[in-house]
Amino acid sequence: MSSPPIAMDLRTSAAAVAGRVETAMCADLETTLARCDPLLIEVVHYSLFPGGKRIRPLLTVLSSRCCGRDDDDLYLLAMAFEYLHVATLVHDDVIDRASQRRGKATVVARFGLTAAILAGDWLHARSMHLIGRLAGPQGLAIFCAATLSMVNGEFVQLRLAGDAATREHQYFEVISQKTGNLIASTCALGALYAGADEGRVQALSAYGDLIGAAFQVVDDLLDFQGNPGSTGKKIGNDFVEGKMTLPLLHTLERADAADRRAIEELMAADRTDPASYRHLVALIERYDGFTAAAAAARNLIDQALAALAPFTRPGEEDPSVRLLRDLALYILARNK
Amino acid sequence: MSSPPIAMDLRTSAAAVAGRVETAMCADLETTLARCDPLLIEVVHYSLFPGGKRIRPLLTVLSSRCCGRDDDDLYLLAMAFEYLHVATLVHDDVIDRASQRRGKATVVARFGLTAAILAGDWLHARSMHLIGRLAGPQGLAIFCAATLSMVNGEFVQLRLAGDAATREHQYFEVISQKTGNLIASTCALGALYAGADEGRVQALSAYGDLIGAAFQVVDDLLDFQGNPGSTGKKIGNDFVEGKMTLPLLHTLERADAADRRAIEELMAADRTDPASYRHLVALIERYDGFTAAAAAARNLIDQALAALAPFTRPGEEDPSVRLLRDLALYILARNK
Repeated sequence: MSSPPIAMDLRTSAAAVAGRVETAMCADLETTLARCDPLLIEVVHYSLFPGGKRIRPLLTVLSSRCCGRDDDDLYLLAMAFEYLHVATLVHDDVIDRASQRRGKATVVARFGLTAAILAGDWLHARSMHLIGRLAGPQGLAIFCAATLSMVNGEFVQLRLAGDAATREHQYFEVISQKTGNLIASTCALGALYAGADEGRVQALSAYGDLIGAAFQVVDDLLDFQGNPGSTGKKIGNDFVEGKMTLPLLHTLERADAADRRAIEELMAADRTDPASYRHLVALIERYDGFTAAAAAARNLIDQALAALAPFTRPGEEDPSVRLLRDLALYILARNK
Repeated sequence: MSSPPIAMDLRTSAAAVAGRVETAMCADLETTLARCDPLLIEVVHYSLFPGGKRIRPLLTVLSSRCCGRDDDDLYLLAMAFEYLHVATLVHDDVIDRASQRRGKATVVARFGLTAAILAGDWLHARSMHLIGRLAGPQGLAIFCAATLSMVNGEFVQLRLAGDAATREHQYFEVISQKTGNLIASTCALGALYAGADEGRVQALSAYGDLIGAAFQVVDDLLDFQGNPGSTGKKIGNDFVEGKMTLPLLHTLERADAADRRAIEELMAADRTDPASYRHLVALIERYDGFTAAAAAARNLIDQALAALAPFTRPGEEDPSVRLLRDLALYILARNK
């Protein structure tokens, strides 16, 4: 876990970047939504503010900075990733029929299906527009490929839902497609924006892919072990939805025949039954599934830190590289 | 109405272009969906094939051709417009909870909400990717602006639904935003692709905007007067949904106080009642609302033909320009 002063530094820097990104967003919305329908304006603002930690824009900004560029347009580029992220959240909430996100009503709950689908499409298109303008054809290609891969990851996850024959490597493929590729592209485009050479673009892209995967592993662990008070999410939700996450897959691959059959029966029965969930947790604990998943996350973060090697210099460390390290450690330590 | 030999020529050329566009789509899907989830592959193919008349790609191809360029990549660019069009149809069907389109089950009816939203997002992203690659930053900017405008048009239409205070000019704004801008962009990007000068790009863009508007006016007229056997749509559907279209707006702006009040009462009451619909039709006929809307469509098409002036040469006419003219006349004459 990161030491307090480092975390403080990360928190301060992240807040400063988020502030500049939000200023850029406000200016962009002011112009782009000028003369638009009042409801569209309201829905788009509602979806974007107040936001989360703006991690994706932060990654773009830090990646560009550690390759030597930091100017006003960088925050426009960074913001495009937040637009896409929010577009996917808005559509996800339609798909999941979710009523709450970040402590307030979801867009679909508040404004209805039509507004949610359309506002998601608006953010998606605006995001592509900005990326195309600021990151050039190569950047747009990376970004679009990551978006296509994200959609594919959702389909694969859908197909594997509740399927006890799922293997661990399939889980890692899904999280790379769903989360890793897009996080990798936020880093790669920051590096490209700064005119970095191929080696540095690749290094930051690998870093992004790995922290993205670690983020998802931790997220899936928190679904079992998080504190609903701080995560704002119901415990055991993934089990109810039949999501095959790492603690469970680790257990399935190692369980003896009887325990494996027990899990298969739990997956096939009514998954909303709290007793079933408690039984599943006990089985996962028997095979150290939670410990194994936590170790996998730590391993991914170790690899992510190693990927930053091209940026390590003898003597003083670049502050942006240090923040990328801290961010990786924060992902590992987060509990909400 | 266009004379039979011209229509024959248009039909043959449109089919030939559609064939090349569909070949390009198949090749693109083969590559882009390689190693993707089988369900994603199935849903994307299902949404695209069999398709409609592929009018949008046809416009891109003809616009580029009449500016002097026709090569293989043109059909990739053209196809991107079909991807976006189908993406919006797939999302529209989710919004409208529609069960049938083009004589088969909609994507949402056949594969469910999740698959429909995600497949629409996939097509949207792939379309942007192709446009960014083939049409350059200026083309991408035009395309994205048209997409944003389309979403805004949907919001404005939503706001005006059932509102008897809507004015004709608001109707024309909505159809320009919803349909005109995107059709204009299909033409403008074809011209840009061919390296046309600003005057020709603008001329084709104006042509597209005008035929797009005419298309919508005719579509709205067919909602009252079409033959459900050939349109495949239920008559009077716009009234049920509270859509304020031209025949009705023409009537509202000219009706005496009593008739206006009658219409307002019909709009406010149960709009699924067939007697209400018949009453509305009689009122529209009293004020020549249908004739006026048909005249408006004819007027838009006349303007569209006039916009093609920079392409008219003394003596023999360019075959692509002739097809653009025929297409405009076809839009006016269509009855399904």
